[in-house]
Amino acid sequence: MSRPTLHPAFDDIAKRVNNWGRWGADDEIGTLNLVTGEVVREAAACVRSGHRVPLALPLRQDGVQTGVIPGRVNPLHAMVQINQEVFGPGTVACSDDTVTMGLQAGTHWDALTHVSHSGTLYNGRPAHTVTAHGGAEFAGIDKARHVVSRGVLLDVARAHGTDRLPGGHAVTPEDLEAAEEFGRVRVRAGDVVLVRTGQVRAYLAGDRHGYGYPSPGLSVRCPEWFHARDVAAVANDTLTFEVFPPEIEDLWLPVHALDLVEMGMLQGQNWNLEELSTACGEAGRYAFLLSAMPEPFVGATGTPVAPVAVL
Amino acid sequence: MSRPTLHPAFDDIAKRVNNWGRWGADDEIGTLNLVTGEVVREAAACVRSGHRVPLALPLRQDGVQTGVIPGRVNPLHAMVQINQEVFGPGTVACSDDTVTMGLQAGTHWDALTHVSHSGTLYNGRPAHTVTAHGGAEFAGIDKARHVVSRGVLLDVARAHGTDRLPGGHAVTPEDLEAAEEFGRVRVRAGDVVLVRTGQVRAYLAGDRHGYGYPSPGLSVRCPEWFHARDVAAVANDTLTFEVFPPEIEDLWLPVHALDLVEMGMLQGQNWNLEELSTACGEAGRYAFLLSAMPEPFVGATGTPVAPVAVL
Amino acid sequence: MSRPTLHPAFDDIAKRVNNWGRWGADDEIGTLNLVTGEVVREAAACVRSGHRVPLALPLRQDGVQTGVIPGRVNPLHAMVQINQEVFGPGTVACSDDTVTMGLQAGTHWDALTHVSHSGTLYNGRPAHTVTAHGGAEFAGIDKARHVVSRGVLLDVARAHGTDRLPGGHAVTPEDLEAAEEFGRVRVRAGDVVLVRTGQVRAYLAGDRHGYGYPSPGLSVRCPEWFHARDVAAVANDTLTFEVFPPEIEDLWLPVHALDLVEMGMLQGQNWNLEELSTACGEAGRYAFLLSAMPEPFVGATGTPVAPVAVL
Amino acid sequence: MSRPTLHPAFDDIAKRVNNWGRWGADDEIGTLNLVTGEVVREAAACVRSGHRVPLALPLRQDGVQTGVIPGRVNPLHAMVQINQEVFGPGTVACSDDTVTMGLQAGTHWDALTHVSHSGTLYNGRPAHTVTAHGGAEFAGIDKARHVVSRGVLLDVARAHGTDRLPGGHAVTPEDLEAAEEFGRVRVRAGDVVLVRTGQVRAYLAGDRHGYGYPSPGLSVRCPEWFHARDVAAVANDTLTFEVFPPEIEDLWLPVHALDLVEMGMLQGQNWNLEELSTACGEAGRYAFLLSAMPEPFVGATGTPVAPVAVL
Repeated sequence: MSRPTLHPAFDDIAKRVNNWGRWGADDEIGTLNLVTGEVVREAAACVRSGHRVPLALPLRQDGVQTGVIPGRVNPLHAMVQINQEVFGPGTVACSDDTVTMGLQAGTHWDALTHVSHSGTLYNGRPAHTVTAHGGAEFAGIDKARHVVSRGVLLDVARAHGTDRLPGGHAVTPEDLEAAEEFGRVRVRAGDVVLVRTGQVRAYLAGDRHGYGYPSPGLSVRCPEWFHARDVAAVANDTLTFEVFPPEIEDLWLPVHALDLVEMGMLQGQNWNLEELSTACGEAGRYAFLLSAMPEPFVGATGTPVAPVAVL
Repeated sequence: MSRPTLHPAFDDIAKRVNNWGRWGADDEIGTLNLVTGEVVREAAACVRSGHRVPLALPLRQDGVQTGVIPGRVNPLHAMVQINQEVFGPGTVACSDDTVTMGLQAGTHWDALTHVSHSGTLYNGRPAHTVTAHGGAEFAGIDKARHVVSRGVLLDVARAHGTDRLPGGHAVTPEDLEAAEEFGRVRVRAGDVVLVRTGQVRAYLAGDRHGYGYPSPGLSVRCPEWFHARDVAAVANDTLTFEVFPPEIEDLWLPVHALDLVEMGMLQGQNWNLEELSTACGEAGRYAFLLSAMPEPFVGATGTPVAPVAVL
Repeated sequence: MSRPTLHPAFDDIAKRVNNWGRWGADDEIGTLNLVTGEVVREAAACVRSGHRVPLALPLRQDGVQTGVIPGRVNPLHAMVQINQEVFGPGTVACSDDTVTMGLQAGTHWDALTHVSHSGTLYNGRPAHTVTAHGGAEFAGIDKARHVVSRGVLLDVARAHGTDRLPGGHAVTPEDLEAAEEFGRVRVRAGDVVLVRTGQVRAYLAGDRHGYGYPSPGLSVRCPEWFHARDVAAVANDTLTFEVFPPEIEDLWLPVHALDLVEMGMLQGQNWNLEELSTACGEAGRYAFLLSAMPEPFVGATGTPVAPVAVL
Repeated sequence: MSRPTLHPAFDDIAKRVNNWGRWGADDEIGTLNLVTGEVVREAAACVRSGHRVPLALPLRQDGVQTGVIPGRVNPLHAMVQINQEVFGPGTVACSDDTVTMGLQAGTHWDALTHVSHSGTLYNGRPAHTVTAHGGAEFAGIDKARHVVSRGVLLDVARAHGTDRLPGGHAVTPEDLEAAEEFGRVRVRAGDVVLVRTGQVRAYLAGDRHGYGYPSPGLSVRCPEWFHARDVAAVANDTLTFEVFPPEIEDLWLPVHALDLVEMGMLQGQNWNLEELSTACGEAGRYAFLLSAMPEPFVGATGTPVAPVAVL
């Protein structure tokens, strides 16, 4: 199948990491196929103290979105019942609430269909299968139903001896391997890799604009490393996931396009890895059981997620 | 502390199951305190095949809500970007979406503050601490940050030799114990108990109205049993959680009031336990690792949840 | 310009009523161009008693939508502040609220871009100019900024001697002229015509399903009559606007396509014409000043409207 | 009826302008009662050229709200259908959209129940009649069904010889009378008064923060003037309506409390009076027919409005 060229620097890598057809022409979950029962058993075996570390940022109107990305609104929480004695005076009273939010607004997973390039989605499906009527007909986030695996924290910031990598720092495969060494851990097939840059500290300190840009993030060279290691999914603690501004002129969001379109690999953003960094450091262990189940919004191109690491 | 009387049948039980002050005057998570590191380690030890069973119903506009509960709207999924070449023609294209929904609309957790009675919430806090401005100031769902524990399926329907209990069947402590025996499992302190009635089969078969009412569900006698066993949380496969219509005239939602207000115990509704029933039956094991992390909506009185059982 | 054929019965009429280019290639408001200062002055001259009749149905969750049209949700009203003493205890207290709704859910105007056919919008613009990113780039409802004109009620139901036309009754040009005669009024260039079928009485009586279907409504023959009279806009008291089920097999929504795409004429649905029918009957006058300003949602393909007739 | 004291400076004025009981104990529309048929006829008689001037700001995500007021979100427009061939390939295609917004986010009316003070709403009703369950049970915006009257522009900015009054300028009764003189117009009973400060020019020029604060606006002395003239409603071109920061220490939103609670008079904010200023200046006439119908959101404490002046 011949496709139009996105960018010379991209096309070469794309060819090397492409997983189309690897799990069949009808596959909609990509690298999640790599999470076998054995991987999950090994994940469970990582649980030693039973310490549970939640990784989601609070969902609130004062969330990480600043309005720069149109339509990606922070959660609007509103009440439709407050202590309402639905069955008459003196009866039990109910409170109910609603939310409106961008599915990619907070701590989230990108569905494989969150981006397309050259008119094409993961597994060669046409981009036009995403419509306003039902969203993603193919590979919506509701198809990714089993995101529990071994998680590995690659604490790149700490391996660099810093709390937070500088804005614009491109995290390279060498950085990832240094973090493996720092954590005495090795990423294996089926793992969910969490890459800590420390960037979320800007948001936690109240600097929403500084959090977004400029941002450290994954280099365009990382997807090949993920592919070589047969990683199931990757998440980090930034808004943009990949380094921003980008490394190569006129090549925007190449990591998104490689991970989601070419490899079919879930990406997570705005994960809070601070408490986990401390916990792993104290435990001296960087592998754990990770549960990060997507909310099964049918046809959605992303979803809020409340991940938890169990050490 | 003297409180107004809700109903004679209620007040007696309430006294016996009340947990106010048990974990301190400032406690906001109630029986989740019972999930110790040891419980979590035992949960992890339940993982043998690595088989993962998701328990959430799909989130869609055609969800379980029928309009009977005002404001509790099914998810409205809408697109704000479709394959938008944000950075110019020929660049990587993005799709983004939004949702509006009742936080209790689908598979969800009730926060402890979802109901009050006699003007009072869990731990004796005044009901008026739930406001339109920020929601629940105390014991919002964002406080329940660590819902990973051992899960136990009590397959009451199957123990009764049926696929689905009849509408109006009140599940009793005797039913729960028969299900323990059926599954050769014993509920212990810190467990999250999943009570299967089979009622969700009505919804899955397309009968939304029949799903809601009349419904099998927990008897007013169950909370004492949960209290005696020191259960951490309970979820089931019905809209109303407790039997509906209720067992005692003029006593509405007594199980809600006992679980949430008196005991401080999370409740889950609209969980799909069908696949889990099959999996447990095939494995011959009814205990597993359960991860059911609330989405941390700040001040919310409920949250969608995407639970997963790992066997 | 040659266009693909929609349906033989349609294409003939389309040719006769087509207004593309009539007000220039860049026109985005179509027949609203016909509302001149003189027409507005004549509208003002219709005001004799000063009696004001509002024509919008209440906006509420229990509105006219039943869930049949995906995504077109009734208004969800929710509170974000209730008597909140924002500036400290004892200060002035504020209440604030939010809404989520389908823009075509209640009493509304369709924008010219609400429908396309054969890939084409009004004035020959390509349908793909409607995107998730900003909605209708061309002829969104925000362009229709001046909807005040002479209104004329054609009370077809009453002219037929009935409160409500039967479901499936196709309102013909002959019906419209009989209603003119009944009201001793003649539709002129620039008028906004309100066609009363009485169908909204079903909704007002609590029968939401019966309101929607089967429905009386405009015949495919009406647009030519509107074109001959140079009407500025048309609204009625039904969900579907045109007769439903349709008159011609395999030709769906032909009136929408003729009015919006070919003529560039605003359409209104779910207008409550009951009080107006009484008022006009009592006054013996069927022409009035009509104000029906669209809410200027940028790029929207429809909008709620709160029209008022002043007699 | 004795009420707690809000502030000495306030209580004196409140006594003088109070309209409780003036139109009966059950009245829910306050000064709108002053718009008689005669007033409406006089309004119609103001129409000479038929020139229509819309007064609403576009409804868009980049609206006037900056996030300072919690929950008052700018409109989020999203698509649920785009050129969807609902009835099969080659049929007429539909586009549908939804919105989520704060009802007071853009050009809007405050309902009488938008504020309370000392636990009390207009006409002495208790503040607690506003609930999350249905909103304002009394005097919701849906009760204000007939907002068509004579409009008068008081162009205070232009009367001061400026395009825009300085931030913090308190518009006084003397300013209003100077504007009457400037426009050779006299405000009469039942009029809707539009007070132009020019402040909206900040927003139109892209300065959202400068638009909000500091702001010119009505002085605490104005309500007495409105009361003396028996004005039906007042709107202006600012975010805060009244001067901000306020004139008297520790007395916040006194104009809101006087207008809405004491007088029962609708207030409008964020109206764009720029085009109207030009039109009135050119016509040499400052009175016109004004239609500003609230969208009838049941129980709402505010509503978007698309007002139009007809000269």
